Amino acid sequence: MTNALTVNVPEGLPFIEFEREFDFPVADVFRAHKEPELVAQWLGPRGLRMEIDHYDFRTGGSYRYTHIAPDGTEYRFSGIFHTVRENDFAIQTFEFDAYPDVVSIEFLTFQDLGGGRTRLTAHSVYPSMEARDGMAQSGMESGLSEGYERLEELLAGAGTPQAQSGKVTA
Amino acid sequence: MTNALTVNVPEGLPFIEFEREFDFPVADVFRAHKEPELVAQWLGPRGLRMEIDHYDFRTGGSYRYTHIAPDGTEYRFSGIFHTVRENDFAIQTFEFDAYPDVVSIEFLTFQDLGGGRTRLTAHSVYPSMEARDGMAQSGMESGLSEGYERLEELLAGAGTPQAQSGKVTA
Repeated sequence: MTNALTVNVPEGLPFIEFEREFDFPVADVFRAHKEPELVAQWLGPRGLRMEIDHYDFRTGGSYRYTHIAPDGTEYRFSGIFHTVRENDFAIQTFEFDAYPDVVSIEFLTFQDLGGGRTRLTAHSVYPSMEARDGMAQSGMESGLSEGYERLEELLAGAGTPQAQSGKVTA
Repeated sequence: MTNALTVNVPEGLPFIEFEREFDFPVADVFRAHKEPELVAQWLGPRGLRMEIDHYDFRTGGSYRYTHIAPDGTEYRFSGIFHTVRENDFAIQTFEFDAYPDVVSIEFLTFQDLGGGRTRLTAHSVYPSMEARDGMAQSGMESGLSEGYERLEELLAGAGTPQAQSGKVTA
Protein backbone atom coordinates (compact mmCIF):
# COMPACT_ATOMS: atom_id res chain seq x y z
CA MET A 1 0.00 0.00 0.00
CA THR A 2 1.57 3.24 -1.11
CA ASN A 3 0.00 5.14 1.78
CA ALA A 4 1.09 2.78 4.54
CA LEU A 5 2.29 4.23 7.83
CA THR A 6 6.06 4.19 8.20
CA VAL A 7 7.51 4.47 11.69
CA ASN A 8 11.15 5.16 12.60
CA VAL A 9 12.51 4.57 16.11
CA PRO A 10 16.08 5.86 15.91
CA GLU A 11 18.67 4.13 18.05
CA GLY A 12 20.10 6.21 20.86
CA LEU A 13 17.93 9.28 20.38
CA PRO A 14 14.68 9.86 22.28
CA PHE A 15 12.60 10.35 19.13
CA ILE A 16 9.87 8.57 17.22
CA GLU A 17 9.15 9.60 13.65
CA PHE A 18 6.34 8.55 11.40
CA GLU A 19 4.91 9.35 8.02
CA ARG A 20 1.58 8.64 6.38
CA GLU A 21 0.21 9.72 3.02
CA PHE A 22 -3.42 10.27 2.17
CA ASP A 23 -5.29 10.50 -1.14
CA PHE A 24 -7.13 13.52 0.23
CA PRO A 25 -6.48 17.26 0.16
CA VAL A 26 -4.43 18.82 2.93
CA ALA A 27 -7.34 21.02 4.04
CA ASP A 28 -9.45 17.92 4.68
CA VAL A 29 -6.71 16.10 6.55
CA PHE A 30 -6.03 19.21 8.62
CA ARG A 31 -9.72 19.76 9.38
CA ALA A 32 -9.99 16.17 10.58
CA HIS A 33 -7.24 17.00 13.09
CA LYS A 34 -8.83 20.29 14.10
CA GLU A 35 -12.52 19.62 14.71
CA PRO A 36 -13.20 17.58 17.84
CA GLU A 37 -16.31 15.93 16.38
CA LEU A 38 -14.09 14.57 13.62
CA VAL A 39 -11.10 13.71 15.82
CA ALA A 40 -13.36 11.56 17.98
CA GLN A 41 -14.17 9.42 14.95
CA TRP A 42 -10.67 8.35 13.98
CA LEU A 43 -8.01 8.99 16.63
CA GLY A 44 -6.82 5.75 18.23
CA PRO A 45 -7.27 2.04 17.66
CA ARG A 46 -10.50 0.40 16.62
CA GLY A 47 -12.53 -0.75 19.56
CA LEU A 48 -11.80 2.19 21.83
CA ARG A 49 -14.50 4.83 22.25
CA MET A 50 -13.24 8.39 22.57
CA GLU A 51 -14.74 10.96 24.89
CA ILE A 52 -13.42 14.47 24.51
CA ASP A 53 -13.37 16.75 27.52
CA HIS A 54 -12.03 19.60 25.43
CA TYR A 55 -9.97 19.85 22.27
CA ASP A 56 -9.02 23.35 21.19
CA PHE A 57 -6.68 22.92 18.21
CA ARG A 58 -5.14 26.40 18.00
CA THR A 59 -1.95 28.09 19.16
CA GLY A 60 -2.20 28.24 22.96
CA GLY A 61 -5.14 25.83 23.10
CA SER A 62 -5.28 22.61 25.08
CA TYR A 63 -6.88 19.19 24.95
CA ARG A 64 -7.98 16.37 27.18
CA TYR A 65 -9.67 13.16 26.05
CA THR A 66 -10.32 9.63 27.27
CA HIS A 67 -10.17 6.38 25.35
CA ILE A 68 -12.57 3.82 26.78
CA ALA A 69 -12.05 0.12 26.15
CA PRO A 70 -14.93 -2.35 25.85
CA ASP A 71 -14.17 -3.60 29.36
CA GLY A 72 -14.51 -0.04 30.68
CA THR A 73 -10.82 0.64 31.21
CA GLU A 74 -10.06 4.31 30.64
CA TYR A 75 -6.93 5.86 29.17
CA ARG A 76 -6.64 9.64 29.57
CA PHE A 77 -4.49 11.96 27.49
CA SER A 78 -3.90 15.68 27.70
CA GLY A 79 -1.67 18.43 26.44
CA ILE A 80 -1.34 21.85 24.97
CA PHE A 81 -0.89 23.20 21.46
CA HIS A 82 2.25 25.34 21.33
CA THR A 83 1.63 26.17 17.64
CA VAL A 84 -1.09 25.47 15.12
CA ARG A 85 -0.83 26.81 11.56
CA GLU A 86 -3.77 26.16 9.26
CA ASN A 87 -3.17 23.37 6.74
CA ASP A 88 0.52 23.43 7.58
CA PHE A 89 1.97 22.58 10.97
CA ALA A 90 1.26 21.90 14.61
CA ILE A 91 3.33 21.42 17.78
CA GLN A 92 1.70 19.80 20.77
CA THR A 93 2.60 18.28 24.09
CA PHE A 94 1.32 14.84 25.04
CA GLU A 95 0.79 13.29 28.47
CA PHE A 96 -0.74 9.91 29.33
CA ASP A 97 -2.26 9.95 32.82
CA ALA A 98 -0.79 6.56 33.70
CA TYR A 99 2.66 8.19 33.44
CA PRO A 100 2.17 11.60 35.04
CA ASP A 101 4.71 14.31 34.20
CA VAL A 102 6.30 12.22 31.43
CA VAL A 103 5.47 14.67 28.68
CA SER A 104 6.51 14.46 25.06
CA ILE A 105 6.39 17.13 22.39
CA GLU A 106 5.29 16.33 18.84
CA PHE A 107 5.93 18.27 15.65
CA LEU A 108 3.27 17.48 13.02
CA THR A 109 3.68 18.62 9.41
CA PHE A 110 0.82 18.66 6.91
CA GLN A 111 2.33 18.67 3.44
CA ASP A 112 0.33 19.35 0.28
CA LEU A 113 1.71 16.90 -2.28
CA GLY A 114 -0.45 18.30 -5.05
CA GLY A 115 -2.98 16.29 -6.99
CA GLY A 116 -5.29 16.21 -3.97
CA ARG A 117 -2.82 14.24 -1.84
CA THR A 118 -1.25 14.93 1.54
CA ARG A 119 1.74 13.71 3.52
CA LEU A 120 1.55 13.78 7.30
CA THR A 121 4.94 13.71 9.02
CA ALA A 122 5.48 13.56 12.76
CA HIS A 123 8.60 14.02 14.90
CA SER A 124 7.95 13.12 18.53
CA VAL A 125 10.48 14.03 21.21
CA TYR A 126 10.54 12.21 24.56
CA PRO A 127 12.07 13.44 27.84
CA SER A 128 14.14 10.27 28.24
CA MET A 129 15.18 7.17 26.35
CA GLU A 130 13.05 5.14 28.78
CA ALA A 131 9.96 7.17 27.94
CA ARG A 132 10.64 6.83 24.21
CA ASP A 133 11.18 3.08 24.48
CA GLY A 134 8.07 2.65 26.60
CA MET A 135 5.97 4.41 23.99
CA ALA A 136 7.55 2.51 21.11
CA GLN A 137 6.77 -0.81 22.81
CA SER A 138 3.25 0.15 23.87
CA GLY A 139 1.38 -0.87 20.75
CA MET A 140 1.68 2.70 19.52
CA GLU A 141 2.40 1.65 15.94
CA SER A 142 -0.68 -0.49 15.50
CA GLY A 143 -2.81 2.13 17.23
CA LEU A 144 -1.52 4.82 14.90
CA SER A 145 -1.94 2.57 11.88
CA GLU A 146 -5.56 1.76 12.74
CA GLY A 147 -6.29 5.38 13.51
CA TYR A 148 -5.07 6.47 10.10
CA GLU A 149 -7.16 3.77 8.43
CA ARG A 150 -10.15 5.15 10.29
CA LEU A 151 -9.18 8.65 9.20
CA GLU A 152 -9.13 7.50 5.58
CA GLU A 153 -12.57 5.93 6.01
CA LEU A 154 -13.86 9.19 7.50
CA LEU A 155 -12.39 11.28 4.70
CA ALA A 156 -13.85 8.90 2.14
CA GLY A 157 -17.26 9.26 3.73
CA ALA A 158 -17.44 5.55 4.36
CA GLY A 159 -17.72 3.55 7.56
CA THR A 160 -20.14 3.95 10.44
CA PRO A 161 -23.15 6.29 10.58
CA GLN A 162 -21.10 8.43 12.96
CA ALA A 163 -18.45 8.81 10.28
CA GLN A 164 -21.07 9.61 7.68
CA SER A 165 -22.64 12.28 9.85
CA GLY A 166 -19.21 13.77 10.33
CA LYS A 167 -18.25 13.62 6.65
CA VAL A 168 -15.66 16.18 5.71
CA THR A 169 -16.93 18.48 2.99
CA ALA A 170 -14.61 20.68 0.97
CA MET B 1 30.13 28.87 46.23
CA THR B 2 27.87 26.13 47.45
CA ASN B 3 24.94 27.50 45.48
CA ALA B 4 26.72 27.84 42.13
CA LEU B 5 24.87 26.86 38.97
CA THR B 6 25.88 23.45 37.64
CA VAL B 7 25.13 22.68 33.99
CA ASN B 8 25.30 19.27 32.30
CA VAL B 9 25.29 18.89 28.51
CA PRO B 10 25.17 15.11 28.01
CA GLU B 11 26.96 13.72 24.99
CA GLY B 12 24.73 12.21 22.34
CA LEU B 13 21.39 13.09 23.93
CA PRO B 14 19.42 16.25 23.09
CA PHE B 15 19.21 17.41 26.70
CA ILE B 16 20.58 20.17 28.88
CA GLU B 17 20.34 19.82 32.65
CA PHE B 18 21.10 22.33 35.31
CA GLU B 19 20.83 22.74 39.05
CA ARG B 20 20.99 25.75 41.34
CA GLU B 21 20.46 26.01 45.08
CA PHE B 22 19.15 29.03 46.95
CA ASP B 23 19.26 30.03 50.60
CA PHE B 24 15.60 30.98 50.34
CA PRO B 25 12.34 29.11 50.94
CA VAL B 26 10.76 27.22 48.07
CA ALA B 27 7.62 29.38 48.20
CA ASP B 28 9.72 32.49 47.57
CA VAL B 29 11.70 30.93 44.73
CA PHE B 30 8.47 29.65 43.17
CA ARG B 31 6.72 33.00 43.51
CA ALA B 32 9.65 34.69 41.78
CA HIS B 33 9.01 32.35 38.83
CA LYS B 34 5.26 32.91 38.90
CA GLU B 35 4.69 36.64 39.17
CA PRO B 36 5.56 38.55 35.99
CA GLU B 37 6.58 41.70 37.90
CA LEU B 38 9.19 39.57 39.69
CA VAL B 39 10.25 37.53 36.66
CA ALA B 40 11.05 40.75 34.80
CA GLN B 41 13.57 41.64 37.49
CA TRP B 42 15.79 38.57 37.29
CA LEU B 43 15.28 36.42 34.19
CA GLY B 44 18.19 36.71 31.77
CA PRO B 45 21.64 38.26 31.72
CA ARG B 46 22.49 41.60 33.26
CA GLY B 47 22.23 44.42 30.78
CA LEU B 48 19.12 43.17 28.99
CA ARG B 49 15.82 44.84 29.77
CA MET B 50 12.81 42.54 29.82
CA GLU B 51 9.40 43.51 28.49
CA ILE B 52 6.64 41.04 29.16
CA ASP B 53 3.75 40.78 26.70
CA HIS B 54 2.05 38.21 28.88
CA TYR B 55 3.22 35.65 31.39
CA ASP B 56 0.54 33.36 32.81
CA PHE B 57 2.37 30.80 34.96
CA ARG B 58 -0.35 28.16 35.39
CA THR B 59 -1.30 24.87 33.78
CA GLY B 60 -2.49 25.77 30.28
CA GLY B 61 -1.14 29.31 30.45
CA SER B 62 1.28 30.90 28.03
CA TYR B 63 4.01 33.51 27.92
CA ARG B 64 5.74 35.90 25.57
CA TYR B 65 8.51 38.32 26.48
CA THR B 66 11.26 40.33 24.84
CA HIS B 67 14.81 40.92 26.02
CA ILE B 68 16.12 44.25 24.80
CA ALA B 69 19.84 44.91 24.57
CA PRO B 70 21.38 48.34 25.16
CA ASP B 71 21.83 48.72 21.38
CA GLY B 72 18.10 48.09 20.90
CA THR B 73 18.39 44.54 19.55
CA GLU B 74 15.37 42.51 20.58
CA TYR B 75 15.20 38.81 21.44
CA ARG B 76 11.70 37.36 21.69
CA PHE B 77 10.70 34.21 23.54
CA SER B 78 7.39 32.45 23.89
CA GLY B 79 5.79 29.23 25.01
CA ILE B 80 3.12 27.49 26.94
CA PHE B 81 2.91 25.97 30.41
CA HIS B 82 1.86 22.33 30.12
CA THR B 83 1.88 21.93 33.92
CA VAL B 84 2.42 24.20 36.89
CA ARG B 85 2.18 22.85 40.43
CA GLU B 86 2.53 25.32 43.26
CA ASN B 87 5.94 25.24 44.98
CA ASP B 88 6.71 21.98 43.22
CA PHE B 89 7.03 21.58 39.49
CA ALA B 90 6.51 23.13 36.08
CA ILE B 91 6.71 21.97 32.47
CA GLN B 92 6.96 24.60 29.75
CA THR B 93 7.77 24.90 26.09
CA PHE B 94 10.33 27.41 24.88
CA GLU B 95 10.72 29.06 21.47
CA PHE B 96 13.17 31.78 20.43
CA ASP B 97 11.78 33.81 17.53
CA ALA B 98 15.11 33.76 15.67
CA TYR B 99 14.65 29.98 15.32
CA PRO B 100 10.95 29.59 14.58
CA ASP B 101 9.38 26.17 15.22
CA VAL B 102 12.49 24.90 17.03
CA VAL B 103 10.71 24.31 20.31
CA SER B 104 12.15 22.75 23.43
CA ILE B 105 10.34 21.47 26.50
CA GLU B 106 11.68 22.09 29.98
CA PHE B 107 10.91 20.23 33.21
CA LEU B 108 11.57 22.46 36.24
CA THR B 109 11.58 21.04 39.77
CA PHE B 110 11.38 23.17 42.91
CA GLN B 111 12.69 21.12 45.81
CA ASP B 112 12.32 22.16 49.45
CA LEU B 113 15.63 21.21 51.03
CA GLY B 114 14.44 22.22 54.50
CA GLY B 115 16.08 24.86 56.62
CA GLY B 116 14.71 27.58 54.35
CA ARG B 117 16.68 26.37 51.33
CA THR B 118 15.63 25.33 47.85
CA ARG B 119 17.08 23.36 44.96
CA LEU B 120 15.98 24.22 41.45
CA THR B 121 16.57 21.44 38.90
CA ALA B 122 15.89 21.70 35.19
CA HIS B 123 15.79 19.07 32.43
CA SER B 124 15.49 20.66 28.99
CA VAL B 125 14.67 18.52 25.96
CA TYR B 126 15.49 19.70 22.43
CA PRO B 127 13.92 18.48 19.17
CA SER B 128 17.34 17.71 17.66
CA MET B 129 21.01 17.45 18.59
CA GLU B 130 21.64 20.55 16.47
CA ALA B 131 19.11 22.56 18.46
CA ARG B 132 20.58 21.36 21.74
CA ASP B 133 24.12 22.17 20.63
CA GLY B 134 23.07 25.58 19.36
CA MET B 135 21.56 26.44 22.72
CA ALA B 136 24.50 25.08 24.68
CA GLN B 137 26.90 27.24 22.65
CA SER B 138 24.73 30.36 22.75
CA GLY B 139 25.97 31.83 26.00
CA MET B 140 23.08 30.14 27.76
CA GLU B 141 25.17 29.14 30.76
CA SER B 142 26.40 32.64 31.60
CA GLY B 143 22.94 34.04 30.99
CA LEU B 144 21.43 31.51 33.37
CA SER B 145 24.16 32.08 35.93
CA GLU B 146 23.65 35.85 35.90
CA GLY B 147 19.90 35.46 36.04
CA TYR B 148 20.11 33.31 39.14
CA GLU B 149 22.46 35.82 40.78
CA ARG B 150 19.85 38.49 40.04
CA LEU B 151 17.18 36.21 41.50
CA GLU B 152 19.20 35.86 44.67
CA GLU B 153 19.54 39.64 44.88
CA LEU B 154 15.81 40.02 44.42
CA LEU B 155 15.02 37.43 47.07
CA ALA B 156 17.46 39.09 49.45
CA GLY B 157 15.74 42.41 48.90
CA ALA B 158 18.97 43.91 47.68
CA GLY B 159 19.96 45.49 44.39
CA THR B 160 18.15 48.12 42.39
CA PRO B 161 15.12 50.13 43.53
CA GLN B 162 13.10 48.01 41.12
CA ALA B 163 14.18 44.91 42.99
CA GLN B 164 13.35 46.54 46.30
CA SER B 165 9.88 47.47 45.14
CA GLY B 166 9.37 43.89 44.05
CA LYS B 167 10.75 42.36 47.22
CA VAL B 168 9.39 38.92 47.89
CA THR B 169 7.73 38.71 51.29
CA ALA B 170 6.92 35.42 52.96
